[in-house]
Amino acid sequence: MSTDKIQQTANDFVTYVRKMKQLHEAIQLIQWDMSVLIPKQGVAQRAEVVGMLSSELFMMQISDQMGEFLEVLAQPEALSQLDPITRNSVLDRKLEYDRDKSIPPDKFREYVVLTQKAESAWAEAKQNNDFEMFRPYLEQIVALLGEFIEIWGYQDNKYDTLLNKYEPGLTVAKLDVIFGNLREKTIDLLQRIQQKEQVNRSFLHLSYPKDQQQKYSRYMLNQLGFDFSKGHFEESPHPFAVGLNPNDVRITTFYFENDITASLFGTIHEFGHAIYEQNVSHDLIGTFLCTGTSMGIHESQSRFWENMLGRSQEFWQHHFDGLVSHFPEQLAGVSAEEFYKAVNYVDPSLIRVDADELTYNLHIMLRYEIEKDLINGKIQVKDLPEIWAQKMEEYLGVRPESHATGVLQDIHWSGGAFGYFSSYSLGNIYAAQLENTMRKELPDYQEQVARGDVSQVLAWLNRKVYKHGKMLTPGEIMVQATGEEINSDYLVTYLEEKFKKIYGI
Amino acid sequence: MSTDKIQQTANDFVTYVRKMKQLHEAIQLIQWDMSVLIPKQGVAQRAEVVGMLSSELFMMQISDQMGEFLEVLAQPEALSQLDPITRNSVLDRKLEYDRDKSIPPDKFREYVVLTQKAESAWAEAKQNNDFEMFRPYLEQIVALLGEFIEIWGYQDNKYDTLLNKYEPGLTVAKLDVIFGNLREKTIDLLQRIQQKEQVNRSFLHLSYPKDQQQKYSRYMLNQLGFDFSKGHFEESPHPFAVGLNPNDVRITTFYFENDITASLFGTIHEFGHAIYEQNVSHDLIGTFLCTGTSMGIHESQSRFWENMLGRSQEFWQHHFDGLVSHFPEQLAGVSAEEFYKAVNYVDPSLIRVDADELTYNLHIMLRYEIEKDLINGKIQVKDLPEIWAQKMEEYLGVRPESHATGVLQDIHWSGGAFGYFSSYSLGNIYAAQLENTMRKELPDYQEQVARGDVSQVLAWLNRKVYKHGKMLTPGEIMVQATGEEINSDYLVTYLEEKFKKIYGI
Repeated sequence: MSTDKIQQTANDFVTYVRKMKQLHEAIQLIQWDMSVLIPKQGVAQRAEVVGMLSSELFMMQISDQMGEFLEVLAQPEALSQLDPITRNSVLDRKLEYDRDKSIPPDKFREYVVLTQKAESAWAEAKQNNDFEMFRPYLEQIVALLGEFIEIWGYQDNKYDTLLNKYEPGLTVAKLDVIFGNLREKTIDLLQRIQQKEQVNRSFLHLSYPKDQQQKYSRYMLNQLGFDFSKGHFEESPHPFAVGLNPNDVRITTFYFENDITASLFGTIHEFGHAIYEQNVSHDLIGTFLCTGTSMGIHESQSRFWENMLGRSQEFWQHHFDGLVSHFPEQLAGVSAEEFYKAVNYVDPSLIRVDADELTYNLHIMLRYEIEKDLINGKIQVKDLPEIWAQKMEEYLGVRPESHATGVLQDIHWSGGAFGYFSSYSLGNIYAAQLENTMRKELPDYQEQVARGDVSQVLAWLNRKVYKHGKMLTPGEIMVQATGEEINSDYLVTYLEEKFKKIYGI
Repeated sequence: MSTDKIQQTANDFVTYVRKMKQLHEAIQLIQWDMSVLIPKQGVAQRAEVVGMLSSELFMMQISDQMGEFLEVLAQPEALSQLDPITRNSVLDRKLEYDRDKSIPPDKFREYVVLTQKAESAWAEAKQNNDFEMFRPYLEQIVALLGEFIEIWGYQDNKYDTLLNKYEPGLTVAKLDVIFGNLREKTIDLLQRIQQKEQVNRSFLHLSYPKDQQQKYSRYMLNQLGFDFSKGHFEESPHPFAVGLNPNDVRITTFYFENDITASLFGTIHEFGHAIYEQNVSHDLIGTFLCTGTSMGIHESQSRFWENMLGRSQEFWQHHFDGLVSHFPEQLAGVSAEEFYKAVNYVDPSLIRVDADELTYNLHIMLRYEIEKDLINGKIQVKDLPEIWAQKMEEYLGVRPESHATGVLQDIHWSGGAFGYFSSYSLGNIYAAQLENTMRKELPDYQEQVARGDVSQVLAWLNRKVYKHGKMLTPGEIMVQATGEEINSDYLVTYLEEKFKKIYGI
């Protein structure tokens, strides 16, 4: 193959992918609008617009044209001649192409229709607290995913194939070790905490008017250095972040008038996602590498900013006065120390999204174990409610009295997102591991935070994580940044040190 | 040609056009976002997304596929077999196809690039008050439009071809009569008003805080019956309305803290556009007929709601108390009658967008005459500043002292939008003509308005105008609704009756 031919094909490929990415950006913007401000009656028609554009994008991804590009460019001889960004872009598109192209179109359509129906069925089942309404859909989803895994192939464990969709390189073998260690230590720590007196957190649940919370959220974003010239902040029922491109990253939050923590830490959490997206290298614009490298690494940033920084003593040493000046009546007589302890309470409960920093991971591990066993045929869908309840009791000491607060609480499975849940705990694990290295390389970072200065923290994370986008895999990020592969010891140490001190253990 | 073949082609055509319309809706939404809330640094990248989608849409419009559809469906034999909506959709697309396809691609690209450059040049020229900076661009635009007219063809007057782009069926011959009558009577009335004492309007320019204006604008939209489940209301630097589809119509307004009238009447104006779009028949969704039939008829609705209804004595008879309750300090001691007179002041000024209801049309006619003479080669671009100043003095009695407040004040020409300005006055003329018939068919409509009830007015306009979308031409709308073609006598009568009473003539 001539160099000219390779170069010409590479140029055409770059142009083609840029167009795909523009289509993707249009879809993401329209979906943002649908989540945030579309008038109610406009949803149905807009969904058709999104459907049309998504179908166009999918057709471009699996087109003969794409096949021809990859046939030329994915050969070792060609790859070695490409610049690093184009090379990674080729490999990234090839992964998608092989995955999408291998599923027979009829099968894929069956899956799309099934998950659409399953989402409605799940919502109704949850509302009616009736697992049987959802069961047949979930059974079909598990069966279809099983077929897909056979097509895509697997090495050691069928479930690896699904984990890899969200966290490239992750396996059951690794996760069993990582999670096993974390589970054991977490349950042990939890039991010791439960013998201690609960911290007072009643002042977090006084009346916090929405407009004051809005003002404070915006103030906090400014304090953290959110660049509003490259981002937008709005309210929405389900808080989320989306990076349309590094120059337009949008976050939302939701306000509960009897709970200041939801918008406060929700906003900082989404800030963590946003600051990642805003700092991805501009060189990657126009490729699908221009975003966070994986769900887990992304979550490590939201968790780092929300928990490790945002729930730290040093952080509130600096920010508590500003908070009190926004809510003088609600926080009258509360000290920074009391506030710090209150926002770090530990209290096992049924609902994952309401869980505290310590017990949250137990909710995730329960789901991981169930997914793994379902996909490997070791348990059956019909037994899930009982398995769920047993594990909740074993790990958290609480037992759901309804399906709605048990096995039906999350939307994820109805959309077929098996393998996704782990990302949340991977985020905590990555974050603690990164923080451990950061402390060595920036020994006084906590003093900086206590002075309200996060600029060096941000610069460090940018250098190690953000700017690379998808040019590095999660594994490469961790090894380059911390010198070792993922390791949950750091999270265990972090949790033990933090909560032993708070609870006087 | 077999009926089967026609039916099959028609089905494919309908599907094809639906996809085009969805693409168009996506583009409009992204542009709405760019006008309203996009972060500053996101604009450049988003412009590329819009460029890509617009180019896709244009390619679909002039594709061989479209050519084949039209070759089959635009034949009389086929047209007669189509349902009315598909028939009109075919004719509508054929008009676009013939227009777009006839321009050589190089020529079209030249025009797009030229107008893009011209817009920047205009902005700079206006800022520097330097007509010479803009002159060469305007000369090229006029020359290119001349070439396009030669390609598209014309019957009596070259300028007719441009008028028709915005107002199908309109000609210089008609407009000279309509505008001639209006100009003469307006100037006469204006001169008589200027001999009278000015009404007091100082209270409109006290301090009106933005948040109170926002609250009031929303309140007024509710009073008028704006359906927020099918629409959205936001702030933006340049107020506008866009109907993405009848179930998602968005309007914006802008707040001047020292002028309550801008947001008040601006909001009602955009409501007029919005209520039209929201009521277009749902049968037309998925076609380009699903919108207002022309710029002029659209403007008739914004002007009807803003001026004929929103600036009427009856309207404020009902709404003044609500306004006072929102602005008790600013309007202390002001009566409904004084307010009514104040918002109907007449006072010639240099800037079109700030003009009062009476003199506004003179600004338009000046532009109409200049455009017509430019396109017909009777005047030259280099002489525009002087011609502009002379006409301003002749019609309005004021003379611009700068280009920025004279010939450079509007953006329109830089984008090549010759033929567009007339729509604004056509709107006033149509509105008065419709109102005249409405008064006959709903004799007590003004009493209803005085009771705060606009439901019958809305139902009447819906029946006569809104629901038809583009299924009727502007001419058909007017003849069916009022029994005659466009006639500016009704506007003249309306203006004379209204202002003679206010100014005691």
